[in-house]
Amino acid sequence: MKIFTFDTTLRDGTQGEAVSFSVDDKLVIAQKLDELGIDYIEGGWPGSNPRDKEFFSRARDLQLKHSKLTAFGSTRFARNPVHQDSNVRNLLEAGTPVVSIFGKSWDLHTQRALGITEDENIALISETVSYLIQHGKEVVYDAEHFFDGYISNPSFALRTLEAAQKAGASVLCLCDTNGGTLPGRLVEIFADVRKRFDGIIGIHCHNDSDVAVANTLAAVEAGATHVQGCFNGYGERCGNANMASLLANLELKLGHTTIGPEKLTHLTSVARFIAELANLSVRNDQPYVGRSAFAHKGGVHVSAVLKDSATYEHVRPDTVGNRQRVLLSDLSGRSNILYKLKQHGLVDRLSDASHRELLERIKQMEFMGYELEAAEGTFELLVREALHPNLNLFEVVNYEVAMKSNGKDVQTTATVTLKAQDGIHSATANGHGPMNALDLCLRQCLAQLYPAISNVRLTDYKVRVLDTKKGTAAKVRVLVEWSDNRRSWATVGVSDNVISASWHALLDAIRLELMRLVEKDEAIERAVEDYCWGV
Amino acid sequence: MKIFTFDTTLRDGTQGEAVSFSVDDKLVIAQKLDELGIDYIEGGWPGSNPRDKEFFSRARDLQLKHSKLTAFGSTRFARNPVHQDSNVRNLLEAGTPVVSIFGKSWDLHTQRALGITEDENIALISETVSYLIQHGKEVVYDAEHFFDGYISNPSFALRTLEAAQKAGASVLCLCDTNGGTLPGRLVEIFADVRKRFDGIIGIHCHNDSDVAVANTLAAVEAGATHVQGCFNGYGERCGNANMASLLANLELKLGHTTIGPEKLTHLTSVARFIAELANLSVRNDQPYVGRSAFAHKGGVHVSAVLKDSATYEHVRPDTVGNRQRVLLSDLSGRSNILYKLKQHGLVDRLSDASHRELLERIKQMEFMGYELEAAEGTFELLVREALHPNLNLFEVVNYEVAMKSNGKDVQTTATVTLKAQDGIHSATANGHGPMNALDLCLRQCLAQLYPAISNVRLTDYKVRVLDTKKGTAAKVRVLVEWSDNRRSWATVGVSDNVISASWHALLDAIRLELMRLVEKDEAIERAVEDYCWGV
Repeated sequence: MKIFTFDTTLRDGTQGEAVSFSVDDKLVIAQKLDELGIDYIEGGWPGSNPRDKEFFSRARDLQLKHSKLTAFGSTRFARNPVHQDSNVRNLLEAGTPVVSIFGKSWDLHTQRALGITEDENIALISETVSYLIQHGKEVVYDAEHFFDGYISNPSFALRTLEAAQKAGASVLCLCDTNGGTLPGRLVEIFADVRKRFDGIIGIHCHNDSDVAVANTLAAVEAGATHVQGCFNGYGERCGNANMASLLANLELKLGHTTIGPEKLTHLTSVARFIAELANLSVRNDQPYVGRSAFAHKGGVHVSAVLKDSATYEHVRPDTVGNRQRVLLSDLSGRSNILYKLKQHGLVDRLSDASHRELLERIKQMEFMGYELEAAEGTFELLVREALHPNLNLFEVVNYEVAMKSNGKDVQTTATVTLKAQDGIHSATANGHGPMNALDLCLRQCLAQLYPAISNVRLTDYKVRVLDTKKGTAAKVRVLVEWSDNRRSWATVGVSDNVISASWHALLDAIRLELMRLVEKDEAIERAVEDYCWGV
Repeated sequence: MKIFTFDTTLRDGTQGEAVSFSVDDKLVIAQKLDELGIDYIEGGWPGSNPRDKEFFSRARDLQLKHSKLTAFGSTRFARNPVHQDSNVRNLLEAGTPVVSIFGKSWDLHTQRALGITEDENIALISETVSYLIQHGKEVVYDAEHFFDGYISNPSFALRTLEAAQKAGASVLCLCDTNGGTLPGRLVEIFADVRKRFDGIIGIHCHNDSDVAVANTLAAVEAGATHVQGCFNGYGERCGNANMASLLANLELKLGHTTIGPEKLTHLTSVARFIAELANLSVRNDQPYVGRSAFAHKGGVHVSAVLKDSATYEHVRPDTVGNRQRVLLSDLSGRSNILYKLKQHGLVDRLSDASHRELLERIKQMEFMGYELEAAEGTFELLVREALHPNLNLFEVVNYEVAMKSNGKDVQTTATVTLKAQDGIHSATANGHGPMNALDLCLRQCLAQLYPAISNVRLTDYKVRVLDTKKGTAAKVRVLVEWSDNRRSWATVGVSDNVISASWHALLDAIRLELMRLVEKDEAIERAVEDYCWGV
């Protein structure tokens, strides 16, 4: 059966404590959700803040192919006639084909939060929906707190739905706003509504009881044909039903149609793209789309899954655009790396001496606290150096950094001396901090020999302490992400000196870029992709 | 009804990609779970790795008051007679009162993974259970892949249960090992088993379909009286049913007895303690125990929740040991801070000039990218300085750092000059990196005046880039966590120079410690606790 998808990542999702999107982010995400085939995109609450208002004004230029953009707001305020209500006016001015409005279904709320009578509440709903319909909008009616309301006073809760439907709402969406309802109770109530009302009944669940996805699916099994959710489960408090999990479960497990099987193969990349813009990572253990969702660690699981993936995978990873990963951990990292290199035919290409040296270097790096799985750049460089032991592009002779401050301003100067094919190169530069000053020196030294390095730039920089017991003398691990406009990679440095660690990550990034220019090697690239998590 | 709780954080939980506990960690966690009143603690698989073996050997010294420690393993290998099977021997040697063993219920597995006949599989189960019973163990039988097995071949799946029960297993636990079963199907199958078997039937769910908690609760509603899960939802791939959510839902929503309402008030602290040892944070949006679980951001929600918390909270936060947080965000951070200071009576204590300056400083810091909610130390210092504008403990006159490397070794030297009450102090020191060298100088300068600062030490150090477009010249935010053995706090520094940013965080930490020594002020401490997330 066709189930309509209503994504509220851009509205309810941004109520999540850590989630924040710029207007530009929101526009790009709307475009992505359209490409994915989501039916309704709730873009924001134009009456609540200037950012959402700006979003709707700029969204007029979006050329959505499939999705209907939706503006969210409340029923009119109790005091205002509907045509003079600023919230309702903002909804019309958003210029979207669809408007979703929420009204109260719970007598506790009409009494405590609004301080109005039941009949007044019914009038708010009915007049607001009618007014929006008269102005040509398709209306999705969100029955806020419907389940709590029904439990408290079923006849009142049902009357609010009746008012919305009579006034012309095309969807009655039942919301478990506090997220406190468990599936058993939710289904009973949903079934009663389904019995009494024709048309499209929707479901909107929050995850406060850790059952938002299950609640949504239970409602679908009881006749819901419109589901609301947020990508990656973003949303107020514990978040909303995770749209990625809903789409996969509805398509792959329950045989319904949402975005269709072809678009479902983009699920993982869309989820990760949205997380990227939110400046959050997709949780590794996120169902279907996380990096660990099809990762096998235990020895028993690994050997079985290599024989037949159905033994420990509930769906094929490619159906959702994810991939299987076999973690050979619990063994040492060394055996894992060798296993991967062997799989890609690289071990055979190593001389005995290089093989021994590679093992020794990995052992040393593990001991120091490097994590090569997270740093594909450093890993790739290691393998390339083992395969091409004589390719010595440059060598650092010495470097120094000095910082001086009079208590207010800070001046940073670095000097770097390198030996390259054609002799000694030296450069001195002032920079914004030591990393920048060293970077400028390195590029000055190498720019003439290797002009392509000007494309390499830092895109992210993370530091963490490895041994917290040593205070400011603790060893740190620096992870730097780089891009050369064609691809991204990460390098890692470990030292008890944050600047040395950063310097090593910087050197590795530049050296890798140069090696790639000198020698294409697809087997290495495949091995890296297979072993590392990717940026 | 009494529902038995079986926690497998220490066994299945460690199969999670990012989860790793030392033997010491595992012992401390077992102690915590015992205090919480968990019935069974599955501590590991003694046959699979030396760490788990060591755990069980050291666990003999644990004085558990309530929990039964449980060792996990498989039925005997097909080739081995049971009394010669090393896995079974390891289980006995673990010396626990309870043993849980898993056997195959899915014909796909017996054929593809083990390559044995159905009858041979029944013999493995039956002989292994009997042998363990003969040796005085209580046996929990884990029917691996039970639901997939039942769907594929119900009579075979049911025969395996029968074999385990006849041989004396006291619990038949049905496992959704691949996590692919949705609640509807799961309940049908569970109900059929419940109908056919007396005694305790358990449930063990994985979260690959994002419904592990709901599946577990559905099984309980269909007659399960033994639930397995992991704290914080740790576990292979997408994790296991989250034990914290299970306990709260069973106690507060379904009226069952697990650990009882009094111990439930420790739920949040136990969940966070376990996360701490795993070196992971509890997800902010984790149901019941996350920092955002009872946090209100939207304007409508905040005003309602202040009138009546039931309007947007499904349970009272104190029932699970969590607390309500009102995020006044979407407004500027400034209004939020002032609101909190007002609530704690601090605004009235500010002079007009200090009030203006405080606002100006917060504005400036926000503009630079400081996040004061995450840095209670910096926030507290800001408030203290506003309240005590004349308390000038020391002032930095100048500092410098120099790093030199010959390409191999690195030498770092710093010099710091301060003005304190009694005059000018200057110090030079070599250190492990610039932060350490500066720290040593600062302490040398201040140690005689303020000996107490020797207690302050760095416990964590995190750096992130704020504007990724500027490459190595990007602005970074440094967050440092400190402890003085009595409490922990974080300070933050922002700069395009990672050393300057770290230096500011260091200065703030030391300055704060000194201010606290000079002036106790409980109202400030309460306001900080209320406004910040805490370390």
